[in-house]
Amino acid sequence: MEVSTFFIHITIILLSARILGEMAAYLSIPSVIGELMAGIILGPSLLGLIEPSDVIKLLAEIGIILLLFEVGLETDIVRLMKTGVNSTVVALFGVIAPFAFGFCVGYYLFALPFLTSLFAGGTLTATSIGITVRILTDLSKHHSREAQMVLGAAVIDDIIGVILLAFLYDLSLGKGVSLQHTSQIFVFIVIFMVLAPTAAKLMAGVIRRFDSVSQIPGLIPTTVVSLVLFFAWLAHAVGAPELLGGFAAGIALSRRFFLPMGLAVHAEPAFAHRIEENMKPIIHLFTPIFFVMVGLSLNLKAVNWGSSFVWIFSAVLLITAVIGKIMGAFFIKEDYYRKWAIGLCMIPRGEVGLIFAELGKAAGIFNDDVYAALVIVIALSTVLPIFVIKWFYSRFEDKLGEV
Amino acid sequence: MEVSTFFIHITIILLSARILGEMAAYLSIPSVIGELMAGIILGPSLLGLIEPSDVIKLLAEIGIILLLFEVGLETDIVRLMKTGVNSTVVALFGVIAPFAFGFCVGYYLFALPFLTSLFAGGTLTATSIGITVRILTDLSKHHSREAQMVLGAAVIDDIIGVILLAFLYDLSLGKGVSLQHTSQIFVFIVIFMVLAPTAAKLMAGVIRRFDSVSQIPGLIPTTVVSLVLFFAWLAHAVGAPELLGGFAAGIALSRRFFLPMGLAVHAEPAFAHRIEENMKPIIHLFTPIFFVMVGLSLNLKAVNWGSSFVWIFSAVLLITAVIGKIMGAFFIKEDYYRKWAIGLCMIPRGEVGLIFAELGKAAGIFNDDVYAALVIVIALSTVLPIFVIKWFYSRFEDKLGEV
Repeated sequence: MEVSTFFIHITIILLSARILGEMAAYLSIPSVIGELMAGIILGPSLLGLIEPSDVIKLLAEIGIILLLFEVGLETDIVRLMKTGVNSTVVALFGVIAPFAFGFCVGYYLFALPFLTSLFAGGTLTATSIGITVRILTDLSKHHSREAQMVLGAAVIDDIIGVILLAFLYDLSLGKGVSLQHTSQIFVFIVIFMVLAPTAAKLMAGVIRRFDSVSQIPGLIPTTVVSLVLFFAWLAHAVGAPELLGGFAAGIALSRRFFLPMGLAVHAEPAFAHRIEENMKPIIHLFTPIFFVMVGLSLNLKAVNWGSSFVWIFSAVLLITAVIGKIMGAFFIKEDYYRKWAIGLCMIPRGEVGLIFAELGKAAGIFNDDVYAALVIVIALSTVLPIFVIKWFYSRFEDKLGEV
Repeated sequence: MEVSTFFIHITIILLSARILGEMAAYLSIPSVIGELMAGIILGPSLLGLIEPSDVIKLLAEIGIILLLFEVGLETDIVRLMKTGVNSTVVALFGVIAPFAFGFCVGYYLFALPFLTSLFAGGTLTATSIGITVRILTDLSKHHSREAQMVLGAAVIDDIIGVILLAFLYDLSLGKGVSLQHTSQIFVFIVIFMVLAPTAAKLMAGVIRRFDSVSQIPGLIPTTVVSLVLFFAWLAHAVGAPELLGGFAAGIALSRRFFLPMGLAVHAEPAFAHRIEENMKPIIHLFTPIFFVMVGLSLNLKAVNWGSSFVWIFSAVLLITAVIGKIMGAFFIKEDYYRKWAIGLCMIPRGEVGLIFAELGKAAGIFNDDVYAALVIVIALSTVLPIFVIKWFYSRFEDKLGEV
């Protein structure tokens, strides 16, 4: 692609995301819906104006990594730890139930092949961190207790999703189930999530020391983005999703993350503030590209709208996908309404589901109709909860006394 | 290339540019030298660690466009107009002399083919705006009278360079000299440079109006970057260098650019300040990639260091390249020392020269030795003036009374 063509594509993506996002906000609809719509309109579903090229995918990937960095930056690690057990329960049930339901629906109800049913279950497992975070931020609920729990659960979800993907991928290649490979990935990811924030914190200490002697402008944007991309690379290297690297770097730079025994200089409020000031414009520039990209990747034209199989299969899957995720929240000890809030926030699928669907299609595991049904399920399970959550908060906000 | 490989490449580029840039500044060497060195070390010249891939080239291109945007933002259009005649004289002589000298050296002195000599002359024509601006900024001279004149001359230079490139390209394809094509490009570029800032100003007025009603964060980074990339695309569409689009957008958003008859809302200082606050981190993130890219593009390993032709040809060309550019400044009415300052600042070649050299090599117009000699000339004419200009200012600064 020619360089200038790419420039006009980025211009169109950024401006349409902005215009539709603002329009949505004006109509009291969460703005992320506008950005997703921009992608659907520009993409193969409608206008076919912009193809999700590799470069745009890359910028979108940077967008989601930076978004997770921002989430990490605003995360109170102590509170996250406290809600850790509950988050894990929500995450585990939120993965197992949709996976089991999805598999059973495919294998027993619709008599699909074994591997196809497994992949269909896999497509339903992972909650979209990006969309969940955006909904909660759009509703100014991202500092609430339930947001903390959902965030933790979504991160754990993503890890399990990636392990499941590796597992099913091995299976699809006829390699058989490699428990060793799967558990190896698991161990690597756990080590990464424990060590990465500490390592990032030490590096941040180096940046802060440099800050006082630096003689050329732009120290913070270049070094912090480097730090984030380095940990994204490292996450990928150990087999974890890249966005976890961004999250780890964000947690390390947050105001509430301290190393034991004063290993590194404590984050000064002034320095933390400067990081936020410098990083916000960069984060705001890249993240809309991610949400437009999710819309671009949904090819609604590929759906055979006349097939009754597509309609019935997607309707049944959607119900199981929703119930499966909400259920998870009911296995923890919490207020009744907060359980609902957590369950609803876990529903949106988005990017990881799409990766499963694309992989299954590319490997010939999904035929066109199964693929189409999964795309419908992902689209609806992404978009519908946004409205439901908004309605839920407007109706039951007073029942959710902050703790 | 895999996404995560790209992440580690960007990390390496940003960090090495930062470290070598800071080291250079610490040793009182202009920091741009450090960034160019980072590219030479990482690239095919030395380590061969990073290939200048399409994606990195694209980010570098965004870097130079954003740098020109920043330059435009800080440009006083009234002063630029006042120095316009002088800038044009400097630019014209600074193109004609090196081109004529380069051609004569090649054709008469070294008996090279006609087309090869023309391309060799072309390689010497354009001053590198990016490097010139960086040197003057590193020395805190970017608001001086001579900087204004050099900037104007370098912009005009770039326009002439692109027209010359189009002209020679036609010639190399055996199409003969198309005066119509050449003059058409010229007219388009002039129209663009007159209309673009006005159009950009009107669009900026729209952004400002949106600013007060916008409900989602990130209005300025997304819309201003869109504006810049849109004008870069437009510049390319009319046949002008893309960075002129960034410059036009920057001028439009600068504090000193007003439309006649109050067509648009005047830029409020507060709004202009917010644009700078939001854009600086983004500009600082992308511009180092450009300077590292220039270093990456210089393959010093491709030089046949044992060939006496390479040494003699490049030495003679370098002398003509330096004299040709300095001469231009002596055709204007100015103080003696300021003439020298202007002449010296016009010497750095860099990116446009490299485009000529690459094109000539790809088209078979340059053999390996001629190409190598030109690479040496570009490298030395980029790096040496940086030291000379620094020395010049430290020695003669008091003679350059500000006007």
